[in-house]
Amino acid sequence: MKDFSFYNPTRIEFGKGKEENIGQYIAEYGLKKVLIVYGTDRVKKSGLFDKVVKSLNDKGIAYEELGGVISNPVLSKVYEGVELAKSAKVEAVLGIGGASVLDSSKSIAAGAVYEGDVWDFFTFKAVPDKALKIFSIMTLAASGSEMNNYAVVTKEDDKAKLNLAGLATFPTVSVINPELQATVTKEYLAYSAADIFAHSLDMYLTATYLPEYVAGYVENILKTVMRTTEILLEDADNYEARGEFAWAATNALNFTTFCGIENNRFDTHFIEHTMSAEYNIAHGAGLSIVVPAWMKWQKNLLPERFKRFAKEIFNLDTADEGIEALKNWYTKIGAPVTLKEGNIPEEGVAMMVEKLSDIAQMMGAGALYSKEMLSTVFENAR
Amino acid sequence: MKDFSFYNPTRIEFGKGKEENIGQYIAEYGLKKVLIVYGTDRVKKSGLFDKVVKSLNDKGIAYEELGGVISNPVLSKVYEGVELAKSAKVEAVLGIGGASVLDSSKSIAAGAVYEGDVWDFFTFKAVPDKALKIFSIMTLAASGSEMNNYAVVTKEDDKAKLNLAGLATFPTVSVINPELQATVTKEYLAYSAADIFAHSLDMYLTATYLPEYVAGYVENILKTVMRTTEILLEDADNYEARGEFAWAATNALNFTTFCGIENNRFDTHFIEHTMSAEYNIAHGAGLSIVVPAWMKWQKNLLPERFKRFAKEIFNLDTADEGIEALKNWYTKIGAPVTLKEGNIPEEGVAMMVEKLSDIAQMMGAGALYSKEMLSTVFENAR
Repeated sequence: MKDFSFYNPTRIEFGKGKEENIGQYIAEYGLKKVLIVYGTDRVKKSGLFDKVVKSLNDKGIAYEELGGVISNPVLSKVYEGVELAKSAKVEAVLGIGGASVLDSSKSIAAGAVYEGDVWDFFTFKAVPDKALKIFSIMTLAASGSEMNNYAVVTKEDDKAKLNLAGLATFPTVSVINPELQATVTKEYLAYSAADIFAHSLDMYLTATYLPEYVAGYVENILKTVMRTTEILLEDADNYEARGEFAWAATNALNFTTFCGIENNRFDTHFIEHTMSAEYNIAHGAGLSIVVPAWMKWQKNLLPERFKRFAKEIFNLDTADEGIEALKNWYTKIGAPVTLKEGNIPEEGVAMMVEKLSDIAQMMGAGALYSKEMLSTVFENAR
Repeated sequence: MKDFSFYNPTRIEFGKGKEENIGQYIAEYGLKKVLIVYGTDRVKKSGLFDKVVKSLNDKGIAYEELGGVISNPVLSKVYEGVELAKSAKVEAVLGIGGASVLDSSKSIAAGAVYEGDVWDFFTFKAVPDKALKIFSIMTLAASGSEMNNYAVVTKEDDKAKLNLAGLATFPTVSVINPELQATVTKEYLAYSAADIFAHSLDMYLTATYLPEYVAGYVENILKTVMRTTEILLEDADNYEARGEFAWAATNALNFTTFCGIENNRFDTHFIEHTMSAEYNIAHGAGLSIVVPAWMKWQKNLLPERFKRFAKEIFNLDTADEGIEALKNWYTKIGAPVTLKEGNIPEEGVAMMVEKLSDIAQMMGAGALYSKEMLSTVFENAR
């Protein structure tokens, strides 16, 4: 085990109907006014919004609302939320939705108590060590955003898609009710599975040191995601499978997978962020294209790890067989595995290579993310 | 997945030399005076105490000290600590040692801000929802006390061994440096392994519903403990194995294993607590005796679970084979598996059955922990 610090104060309220207690959870922290952040009208049409408002009313909690958060959430909406949070003097932000909503909520919560431009947190000019309290009701499992302090937002003018993270941007309470996640389409379920795989594999297949305990921990997440995705594609209302899928997703990115490892990287997320910022492809769909293509490049760096992956996840013997099996599994569940399947135009590749190479050099990672490496990965995704 | 709430705010600082930063960790919370709690002089002779004091001095943190905490820690020592904490007006308690020290530290931290008798927390007359901040430097891995809010203390006069747990009794920061745990004897290493197994099996082999994700999670802990114990018995200075053992121990009782399960019980801990209170046997040694004996009784209630245990942990086919394999493994590592090996006198059995039966009836669990059940378990341990 390498040295590490672990801290995750988020309280999880998991189960049927827990969203109806959200007023109580917020009241426990003495808060009286919240900003509700959400995406489309679906959250209202489904009756979820009304349930939340009733729960808030019952506890005497006032609210403002901000709808219209889109996938690959944008900075302009965050600015709008920050202004509203400041002017309405809310004490907390409650996100109802998936990762995009929660990432926007975290950014708004940090921006609302900051004098400067909230984008400073994404460019490391400032650290979000203070924020309004953050609450969430997750309607889509994939990002793990409900139990970590990351927020990914895209700045529209230059399409920069960056992260913030600080001690204050962990949600205080996140509600996970698997029933609320049962309406996701088969397509998005597959993308979510690919997203969870990518979080896990970015770490598992890059860490230069991976304790066996942690390897087994991550393999258990991957096996759970595979098993439950297959069940849910057949039977969307299978509550047990939906619940295990959701909880595996949470654990895949709540920092437990990083304990004791060394030198992990986020290659596929790095590459995919530019792809989805440029072409607005769903994050998970971008990842199911990038991951196997990247694996063919990465396999030579950690051959034993790739053999372990093949053995433990697919009961196969070689790195190549493991990569092929994962690609086939993505195809089986309906996630794209080529640029063409993802509607990414051929002529975009050169531009993305340039752009990624520039960002990499800015980050001081130009040697790793060389044009040759990036071109190879895109070539593998043809 | 069944409904659950999960909350664990403890920050873990894991790695070599992290104890030398303890002053910094405490200073981060603005605290100026601590009570250091420890067991024997070993912590001073080893130089650890001096390192801690230097680290506190460097940050201008004053301290009082309370040594003499014994295994199966006692209430009188907690009273002594509470008095000292109150009179010296300390703001935090820092435990340096194993579970007994940390359990005493938690109890002192809760008692120091309570008007009544600290024993009220153990008899559920009061809930420790306020406490001084708690810090720990763990020199023995086993109990998971470094990352949960439990404290087990024995009241000497009637040998009642009971728990407290409250929102305020989670450690704020726990330091786990595997090197500090390398001096444990082989005997105690084996007892620690048995203790971790017992935490895990009490849940895994009793929960009437166990999600596959959680089953896999616990099996990964058990396999890690087996693998690393065997390495450490041969090579006490194997840092990697020591680290994985420590982290598996922490995860075995930080509430992650309880997420989504239903109706778990704590049979073996319940039975063993009376055994160690009466005969002052090491907790882990008591557990290695009780667990296989109890499994022979429990196996008929959840036959499929026992089959899974045999398959996943020992690659064997039947419940009986799995139980026998565990018993043999305990013997192999040097943990006792019979009352005789644990120096528990035959004539004590009837008395323990009476006592446990009385406690069970008081708890409203008389039907489960019947004299017949208890006698059968002790009979199996002959």
